[in-house]
Amino acid sequence: MTEPEPLFERQRQPLLIVISGPSGVGKDTVIQRMKERGVSMHFVVTATTRAPRPGEVNGTDYIFVSNDQFAEMIEKNELIEYAIVYNDYKGIPKQQVRDAMASGKDVVMRIDVQGAATVRSIARDALLIFITTDSEEELVARLQARKTETPEGLKLRIATARKELKRIVEFDYCVINPEFHLETAVDSILAIIEAEHNRVKPRVVTL
Amino acid sequence: MTEPEPLFERQRQPLLIVISGPSGVGKDTVIQRMKERGVSMHFVVTATTRAPRPGEVNGTDYIFVSNDQFAEMIEKNELIEYAIVYNDYKGIPKQQVRDAMASGKDVVMRIDVQGAATVRSIARDALLIFITTDSEEELVARLQARKTETPEGLKLRIATARKELKRIVEFDYCVINPEFHLETAVDSILAIIEAEHNRVKPRVVTL
Repeated sequence: MTEPEPLFERQRQPLLIVISGPSGVGKDTVIQRMKERGVSMHFVVTATTRAPRPGEVNGTDYIFVSNDQFAEMIEKNELIEYAIVYNDYKGIPKQQVRDAMASGKDVVMRIDVQGAATVRSIARDALLIFITTDSEEELVARLQARKTETPEGLKLRIATARKELKRIVEFDYCVINPEFHLETAVDSILAIIEAEHNRVKPRVVTL
Repeated sequence: MTEPEPLFERQRQPLLIVISGPSGVGKDTVIQRMKERGVSMHFVVTATTRAPRPGEVNGTDYIFVSNDQFAEMIEKNELIEYAIVYNDYKGIPKQQVRDAMASGKDVVMRIDVQGAATVRSIARDALLIFITTDSEEELVARLQARKTETPEGLKLRIATARKELKRIVEFDYCVINPEFHLETAVDSILAIIEAEHNRVKPRVVTL
């Protein structure tokens, strides 16, 4: 017999995973549960100009920076994406994502729908997952239950959610996060990630 | 508030799933294990002109037909795909697949690499999964272990496997079935199926 040749040399490409969707669909809860399940992925730590709240740890919960530092990050193009959230800046440090991916880890980031589109424009092969509730009534109920909104604020959130929903087509996958069935949503996300690693034509992201 | 609108009406499209790959990679074992796990899918029962072996049940193991009946199925275009295997005809009845999909079930079929390409040509949105071992040596070892081959037969199988391997690019996913880790392969296949049901642009198969 001749020298054995490798049948199929599979290179495991790390994925850049964006978890997005309207307010109230449970993006943070889903990501929290992924962490608790102990998956070997890098969860992005966002840089923010907001002051730390009691108990928040720099580098774990957020990377806390000054306005000047944040401005410099913008100018030096060190952020993949950034947004103003209630007068505070929040952004995703590019180098952190690069380092995690270089180590072979999948990277998970939570971004709003607008930001997800920005990531796609930078990294065409990013994996974009849209989280949603199973009905609009459910979403409205969840937003109302927060009780952190003024009636005007709530109206605005609902209107925004409706608009964002029309952008599902820009995403690769849509996962329903049904109330009281969080594990189902997390299972679906992990299945998507597993499946994507078995694609014949892998996603290749360079930042 | 205005009348609530459906946030995202998801239609669950049944998938046409093709499990393929060279001889010796364990396609039958993988499918057997899927059945044992009790997944709610339709596993295609192949029509064959071969005589039933002791214990084989018509309609469960195979649909046993005469040469004349098989010829009629070919003429009437009632088969999705057919092939001659050791002088016997084997084919996949189209109506069986249509009925299962109409009932909303995913359909799983085991086909050789050549046949998988035929399915793709008929149903562009079929989900094509290529199963392989983690190395060529491993595949050769498995083929040798069968001991059902003459040395010439074995050589032919290996040569065929090499050629078939080059056709991975025609498939959507490639799953490694490592020896003694069958469950891993089955997990990956089920993850692919779960993920595919969450695609924003679902596969739509009409036969």
